[in-house]
Amino acid sequence: MDLDALIQTSGSWLKGTGPDADIVVSSRIRLARNLARFPFVSRADDELRSQIESLLRQRVMELPSANRFQYVNVDQLEQLDRQFLVERQLISREHADSHGSRGVAISDEEHVSLMTNEEDHLRIQVLQSGLSLENCWELISRIDGQLEEELTFCFDQRLGYLTACPTNVGTGIRVSVMLHLPALVLTKEVQKVFTALQKINLAVRGLYGEGSQAMGDFYQISNQITLGKSEQQIIDNLKDVVPNIIKYERKVRDELVHKRRHELHDEISRAYGILQTAQTISSEETMQRLSSVRMGINLELIDDLGIPAVNELLIHTQPAHLQKHCNSELEVRERNQARAAFLRQRLAQRRGENN
Amino acid sequence: MDLDALIQTSGSWLKGTGPDADIVVSSRIRLARNLARFPFVSRADDELRSQIESLLRQRVMELPSANRFQYVNVDQLEQLDRQFLVERQLISREHADSHGSRGVAISDEEHVSLMTNEEDHLRIQVLQSGLSLENCWELISRIDGQLEEELTFCFDQRLGYLTACPTNVGTGIRVSVMLHLPALVLTKEVQKVFTALQKINLAVRGLYGEGSQAMGDFYQISNQITLGKSEQQIIDNLKDVVPNIIKYERKVRDELVHKRRHELHDEISRAYGILQTAQTISSEETMQRLSSVRMGINLELIDDLGIPAVNELLIHTQPAHLQKHCNSELEVRERNQARAAFLRQRLAQRRGENN
Repeated sequence: MDLDALIQTSGSWLKGTGPDADIVVSSRIRLARNLARFPFVSRADDELRSQIESLLRQRVMELPSANRFQYVNVDQLEQLDRQFLVERQLISREHADSHGSRGVAISDEEHVSLMTNEEDHLRIQVLQSGLSLENCWELISRIDGQLEEELTFCFDQRLGYLTACPTNVGTGIRVSVMLHLPALVLTKEVQKVFTALQKINLAVRGLYGEGSQAMGDFYQISNQITLGKSEQQIIDNLKDVVPNIIKYERKVRDELVHKRRHELHDEISRAYGILQTAQTISSEETMQRLSSVRMGINLELIDDLGIPAVNELLIHTQPAHLQKHCNSELEVRERNQARAAFLRQRLAQRRGENN
Repeated sequence: MDLDALIQTSGSWLKGTGPDADIVVSSRIRLARNLARFPFVSRADDELRSQIESLLRQRVMELPSANRFQYVNVDQLEQLDRQFLVERQLISREHADSHGSRGVAISDEEHVSLMTNEEDHLRIQVLQSGLSLENCWELISRIDGQLEEELTFCFDQRLGYLTACPTNVGTGIRVSVMLHLPALVLTKEVQKVFTALQKINLAVRGLYGEGSQAMGDFYQISNQITLGKSEQQIIDNLKDVVPNIIKYERKVRDELVHKRRHELHDEISRAYGILQTAQTISSEETMQRLSSVRMGINLELIDDLGIPAVNELLIHTQPAHLQKHCNSELEVRERNQARAAFLRQRLAQRRGENN
């Protein structure tokens, strides 16, 4: 696949078209699957891994929708390109850092990706804009079913799908939503939400899943339990909870607008100004300022920029994306300058489009 | 005089046209004079003050250049209008806060002002753009001479001109330059300069003279001694010293540009961005950001704005000016919002003119 082409585009899930996309950036479901007649990846030697990858690639690329897929051999990529796919949310960090035969099939809209030889033999992922868990589930279970017609996955009558890590056993499902919660963070109410979520076995993570820090007020909420519940129950659990968080965030935003409108408007407006004028800016500050601007658009305090543009910048200002944009490897200092230049140029362009 | 008309304009000394106007905002000379046959202002009752004011107003408005003067009765002004004239540097703070008959004659370009019943019966002031002390002196001594043809000033053969405060006795002259020294402030070199200046009896003050704090890297340097030296010696003293400070500031700017170009550019560029987008901004922050932008223009890091525009904003964003612009009295909070709105509007307009 021509990764260089990807740098000119963005995934459909960033378009901000889904339900409640002002607060729910994206919905994601992934399934972990393993072939019955092979050992788990961690126990497979190079030869076996190669066989697993080859078999899965073949099957994946025979799916009815495969004409819209491109397959990338991740083991043949430079480190920068692997990092690029991680930032793009098309492969996991573990997949990027692993070794041996492995790859990923990516749909043209980037809403479907299938990783071979990740922690499990196969990881299927579907990403959608906004709160669209049912859509994700419909699509991913269709793909899963189509694959299962041709492949035999490790399945135990009592436990369900067997996976490399016991935390995925059963359904092998991870259902998550990426939430943008600037008002709850600003008012420190967000901790209450997290405590409540943990009590009902939902995990809160940063932008890049497990072990990553929340940046710019973006949080991923996902199920922790995969066993003893059906996929639909797990999805319903999130579907029940997320609207309450959305409502809470909206309520606190309204309060902020009423009680601290001027400070809020000032902070948002300055963040926008800084993004348009900085000559050097870190990844963290960029996230934080973009988060302010994103809220500003939702609160109609900024009217010449759209949510898709901000979503896109969140992805494209990350280190590997920047270096791909610049066509060269850059050190932190150079990246911070390149990031500022990219933001200035892109914001001027996007503002022009909106006027 | 129609003070409301002044709000639409700026003094000629702000136009940035004088020598070294990148660093020397303005040159100023003022003379203190008292009428021989009246007691000093502090010892004059209302009736006497009224006589002094009346006599001086008459003589001043008979000067050859008086057709370009307007006379304002300061005692009849609202507090806001008096503050407005202080910000404009046309009267002193003491003159504004005093009581009884008093006024000021202002030339149409605002480069000459003559205050009656300030601390002394008459204070003559000439302001010019850049390092223009000789121009100031030529003009002020001509006016002084013309007045002396008609008036008898308190003069002692041995001491010279007698003044209300002993610190002005002799020549009655205060020669000052307003310097913009952002690089020396940033590198903390400015303290060395000040220590050296004090040793040769030059005083360092803030934007509004005695007792005022330096803001936004603007400093006033003036003679402390008025006795025992001729006016020309006092002027020459400043004329000798100021070019060295200019050279020092330029050298440090060059070093900053070479060693810390990116940080410097970033700070300047962000300051410009914030001034264009803030929704609320204090007087102090405005000064500081405008100071950065002013240096940025001089270093050619900002190319769509000119020094006159920044000089003008430094004056017009001050409290009384803002309230005159808004046509209403405003509290601090409202002023900060009005200031931000004024900056956004004015910068958009000035940038348009430069493009």
